[in-house]
Amino acid sequence: MKPVKVIKIGGKVIDDEQKLDTFLHAFVSVKEPKVLVHGGGSIASRMGVRLGIKPNMIDGRRITDAETLEVITMVYGGLVNKKIVAKLQALDTNAIGLSGADLNIIPAKKRNPEPINFGWVGDIESVNTKWLTQFLNENAIPVLAPLTHDGNGNMLNTNADTIASSVASALSSDFKTELMLCFEQDGVMNKGQVVTEMNLLLYRYLKDSGAITDGMIPKLDLGFSALKSGVKNVSIRSFGAVAETSSGTKLTR
Amino acid sequence: MKPVKVIKIGGKVIDDEQKLDTFLHAFVSVKEPKVLVHGGGSIASRMGVRLGIKPNMIDGRRITDAETLEVITMVYGGLVNKKIVAKLQALDTNAIGLSGADLNIIPAKKRNPEPINFGWVGDIESVNTKWLTQFLNENAIPVLAPLTHDGNGNMLNTNADTIASSVASALSSDFKTELMLCFEQDGVMNKGQVVTEMNLLLYRYLKDSGAITDGMIPKLDLGFSALKSGVKNVSIRSFGAVAETSSGTKLTR
Repeated sequence: MKPVKVIKIGGKVIDDEQKLDTFLHAFVSVKEPKVLVHGGGSIASRMGVRLGIKPNMIDGRRITDAETLEVITMVYGGLVNKKIVAKLQALDTNAIGLSGADLNIIPAKKRNPEPINFGWVGDIESVNTKWLTQFLNENAIPVLAPLTHDGNGNMLNTNADTIASSVASALSSDFKTELMLCFEQDGVMNKGQVVTEMNLLLYRYLKDSGAITDGMIPKLDLGFSALKSGVKNVSIRSFGAVAETSSGTKLTR
Repeated sequence: MKPVKVIKIGGKVIDDEQKLDTFLHAFVSVKEPKVLVHGGGSIASRMGVRLGIKPNMIDGRRITDAETLEVITMVYGGLVNKKIVAKLQALDTNAIGLSGADLNIIPAKKRNPEPINFGWVGDIESVNTKWLTQFLNENAIPVLAPLTHDGNGNMLNTNADTIASSVASALSSDFKTELMLCFEQDGVMNKGQVVTEMNLLLYRYLKDSGAITDGMIPKLDLGFSALKSGVKNVSIRSFGAVAETSSGTKLTR
């Protein structure tokens, strides 16, 4: 099977022009066919503030109300996605920006409003790989915004790590797939050191001991679930290290 | 040659949910392969006002400064484009939203700053039809936002009528192409009546007599230029009449 790398970067990297350029240069030097999945939450939050949209929070979690959905559709699907695509074109890399609505690549279901109504949030139903495969086979790089759609004419907000994990899993039927969840740190940290290999047993231990918390837990859960769904390699690494064979925290079963 | 219809709608139709739905229902009933090109200026202007961006005008013409470019990239490429794509998917029409940067479909050149510096405005260099043709051949409907790119990492603002006319002209090498420039009126009006057929001679006469003014002049110029470049049929018609064989003002040479 041909290889493919699914590489995810978050809003904090995109938000910093220098970090974004560092990442994109490393990204285009990856020789294998590749898919880029981006976030953009910090940029959307700032745009929401500028538009006077009050963050709507329940139990400390953000709710995607109708106004917020408009902002993230603009920011993720327009501002961030097209900026990345234009910059990749300037690096002689033929990119195509996509949301989950485009070519019906990621149909989703609006999350059940019980017990908490998160609003216009989409839980992925499936990933249609037909066009993704066609793009990859013809050297066009899919650049995916963290947006899905409900099939009834509405866009939905879907976490970028979740999209990356689902896309990598879906592509695993036809490709030897690698998933890289990239961020600003060198990997999963414990006592100031990168944990170079993490399996489920070590993950549970570090979680129970409180060494792994918050944002890292859903990332690791998604990474392990991708491994289980047939993704060959999963790592959590620095945005600058995407072209390296081995870097950051490698997940094993 | 296979037929293709390139259909353009403006911001005033998109801005009105009912008009947009009327248009989209008519659009999906068009049996031939088709491309949709959309504007969105009125929505972008409103978003600019909400963001406190002062319109930068020279000689009554809007300048696309850096802040305005961000707004139109968000609004055209994100908000408007994804809204239309999601609605088309809900009508069982597999659409793909594209800017000129995606797949390098429309490379452009930033307009010469002399005599007037219009800012981040792009004059189309070419239209790459390879992927457009592939989408059309596989029943995926391209939905084009009025954005191009300069190849140096920057998006550019390009008039939607111009994009529609250029795309129709470029597709004419491989398709029997029809261009429809749609708006809220029934066609080009003269003394309260639709002018059902317009050739260059009549156009010059009506322009000289002051019956055709302002926004209609560039539209007609683009329409006649498309005819000259090999587009088989060009009409200016109502957004509700796109599925009709003959409607509005038909341009002839």
